[in-house]
Amino acid sequence: MSDTTDVAIVGAGPSALYAAFQLGLFGISFRFIEASDRPGGQCTELYGDKPVYDMPAWPTLTAQDVVDKLLQQIAPFKPHFEFGSTISSIVRDQSGVFCLSTKNGRAFSAKAVVVAGGTGAFVADEGRRLIAWDWRDWGFSGHHGAIEVDTERFETSMPGVFAIGDACIYPGKLPLLVSAFHEAALMVQAIRAQLAAPRRAVVEYTSTSSSLQRRLGVKD
Amino acid sequence: MSDTTDVAIVGAGPSALYAAFQLGLFGISFRFIEASDRPGGQCTELYGDKPVYDMPAWPTLTAQDVVDKLLQQIAPFKPHFEFGSTISSIVRDQSGVFCLSTKNGRAFSAKAVVVAGGTGAFVADEGRRLIAWDWRDWGFSGHHGAIEVDTERFETSMPGVFAIGDACIYPGKLPLLVSAFHEAALMVQAIRAQLAAPRRAVVEYTSTSSSLQRRLGVKD
Repeated sequence: MSDTTDVAIVGAGPSALYAAFQLGLFGISFRFIEASDRPGGQCTELYGDKPVYDMPAWPTLTAQDVVDKLLQQIAPFKPHFEFGSTISSIVRDQSGVFCLSTKNGRAFSAKAVVVAGGTGAFVADEGRRLIAWDWRDWGFSGHHGAIEVDTERFETSMPGVFAIGDACIYPGKLPLLVSAFHEAALMVQAIRAQLAAPRRAVVEYTSTSSSLQRRLGVKD
Repeated sequence: MSDTTDVAIVGAGPSALYAAFQLGLFGISFRFIEASDRPGGQCTELYGDKPVYDMPAWPTLTAQDVVDKLLQQIAPFKPHFEFGSTISSIVRDQSGVFCLSTKNGRAFSAKAVVVAGGTGAFVADEGRRLIAWDWRDWGFSGHHGAIEVDTERFETSMPGVFAIGDACIYPGKLPLLVSAFHEAALMVQAIRAQLAAPRRAVVEYTSTSSSLQRRLGVKD
């Protein structure tokens, strides 16, 4: 038994939330699978009351504000969160669909997987320390505790599995929110092209596109 | 006669403004050289009253709001704008310093150049149509009306000259604000390393770094 969605997003921090925003904009369904019992990731768990000064066009706000406003931004897409769920396996079947199993015995299927969480979202074999998590044990190419991706699609060494935010690494990578948002935007275009193939995806702007504005609920 | 600064930023739209924010954070001086008589670029000139829905943590704001809030965000760095100035030549002297000349007879020197503007910021030889501008005429590698850069430093084929926002192109490039902000952040680390060499630049966060917060004026 499994619930199906276009994209399974592992994690629910800012990079996961903005990825969901971009997916929703383009009519792609998603579901969050999150180890914690609430969204926000490190911003909520570690430094919710800390001021952030480098969010573009936000001279100052707190880390929790970033989370709250991103949640407000994805509200039109009616996000669904599976809290308290850590991934125990990801398997791709012959038809190309991924099956994600969780430690608490649930299963989800998806056409693409976005790893947007840290090590907390995955569980190791019994007895292994989570803190020393190595992505290579999951079959990903990676180093420095992160998964290697390309800078065009942000896809991992496993086709159909993408990684953004602190979970990913590439030349020049900085662990900044602005980078996670860019990674999410480019990745979603890659996912969109993959799901819609062979139609070519075109660039659309929220300022002018009627279809994007309808999905946001700001246009009838 | 020329005015000297660490970095000359050609353009004053959102990508230029956020590049200035990142430069200011790291104590690097900058000056804007802008063809128009005001900051904001296309956001101000073409669609200031249009709503924007894809700025992270901003469920909605206008394009002019983006500009106004970015100007507020760089105010601690006392930005200096040279308006009404289009670039007529960029020459690098033997010591590695760039000299930028403008059509109206001014000259500026800088240790690095950031191209963050469209074709309006540059002038062609007499009689050429600006609309058909080709960056290759300036010695840059480029295509589709934009300058080719790498995705680690956002440096052009001319060492010390960088390009971000709509001025640049690389595999996967999207003409989105979120991408321009990411490009600015990584580029500034490359400029910082170039100016400070051989010291290695370390990652600092606005939430926790006293030195960054002092530059922002939010800590004594």
